[in-house]
Amino acid sequence: MDDIETLKRRAGEAAAGLVRSGTVVGLGTGSTARYVIAAIGRALADGTLTDVSGVPTSAACERMAREAGIPLVELGAAGVDIAIDGADEIDPALEAIKGLGGAMTREKIVAAAARRFVLVADATKRVERLGERAPVPVEVLRFGWRRTAAALASLGCTPRLRGGEAAPALTDNGHPVLDCAVPAGFDAAAFAAAVDTLPGVVGTGLFLGLARTAFIAGDGDVVRLERGGAAS
Amino acid sequence: MDDIETLKRRAGEAAAGLVRSGTVVGLGTGSTARYVIAAIGRALADGTLTDVSGVPTSAACERMAREAGIPLVELGAAGVDIAIDGADEIDPALEAIKGLGGAMTREKIVAAAARRFVLVADATKRVERLGERAPVPVEVLRFGWRRTAAALASLGCTPRLRGGEAAPALTDNGHPVLDCAVPAGFDAAAFAAAVDTLPGVVGTGLFLGLARTAFIAGDGDVVRLERGGAAS
Repeated sequence: MDDIETLKRRAGEAAAGLVRSGTVVGLGTGSTARYVIAAIGRALADGTLTDVSGVPTSAACERMAREAGIPLVELGAAGVDIAIDGADEIDPALEAIKGLGGAMTREKIVAAAARRFVLVADATKRVERLGERAPVPVEVLRFGWRRTAAALASLGCTPRLRGGEAAPALTDNGHPVLDCAVPAGFDAAAFAAAVDTLPGVVGTGLFLGLARTAFIAGDGDVVRLERGGAAS
Repeated sequence: MDDIETLKRRAGEAAAGLVRSGTVVGLGTGSTARYVIAAIGRALADGTLTDVSGVPTSAACERMAREAGIPLVELGAAGVDIAIDGADEIDPALEAIKGLGGAMTREKIVAAAARRFVLVADATKRVERLGERAPVPVEVLRFGWRRTAAALASLGCTPRLRGGEAAPALTDNGHPVLDCAVPAGFDAAAFAAAVDTLPGVVGTGLFLGLARTAFIAGDGDVVRLERGGAAS
């Protein structure tokens, strides 16, 4: 059986194969997306790819992309051609939960700005229903966070301040995160709509309607899934 | 004819009359809300009110409340009993635009956390339709703001970075603001719903479904309006 790093690497390298010369690429954050960055860097170094620039979604990803030799640009009004990122959970319709790494809001800005958004993951991230195992991370303003947590709880979830009150974990935007455990029968679309309207919420880790393609690495193979389509 | 400061003072003092002893009050920010703070401070000083604490919605309002002698508390999970704040535009249904002062996101957190939210304004702030004169302020993450501006523009408005690119104005939360001029026939509810789902948006100055009461000072009198009710 292949180890999990091998699976992550295979999924990342398969997705990197979608990147074309002369494009701007959104670079995701995390343990699988790093293999995408490494693969693009190698393709630029050996000349397989030319004139590719990257938009990093976190400080960590920015460092990694610099080391890989990928020229970086700021996200412009025109968006990016393609964005490739990992996920914590992916359901059969390619809806996803992201944010265990805390970069979900920037990642979602880039994903929504991409003409094609691609998920990469090992097979352990596939779920039948979102929220089965992962909490939904919600980035919130520090101001009034207890009230925002109460408002989230009233929607039926169980929020927990990431890192605890003594030393809350902060995103690159400087905000705390409430990890919201959701009940069985969770309706991701309804929850996302309700949470997005709550004052004090900066963003959620629910990536709905965004991914068009996913590369999922299982034992021995990488499956490519298309939104609304069949596995290939 | 009364000058505008007199009108603001009268509206603020009328609203402050709703505050009861033993309650927690959300304190708004701005040139009319300051008269609410001053009136509550005087009532605490002369014993008309006792055991009132305030939740400030900005650094400026916090200083003012300290000077007025109002004990301050953080916004807790239980919210506040009443919040009183100014507005840039108020329509006949008591829907409002706020945010020319840049404090709208914290103000909205407090307004939504209030059992009663009260608006105070001089009569020049009344409009038939929201967006007639004031732009809709949208607080956004600095990351990808050009792309967020493009996404806002695709909803039909004309966004403009407050303060300009060389020295953007920042909110107390540290974020820039896009002032979005809206076209005639603007549908505030549809716009708010669309904007709230955009990644990169922290909050908007549209206060819809929040105000229950408004005190509007015109020449010689203060009109009290109730949501869904008549003037008194």
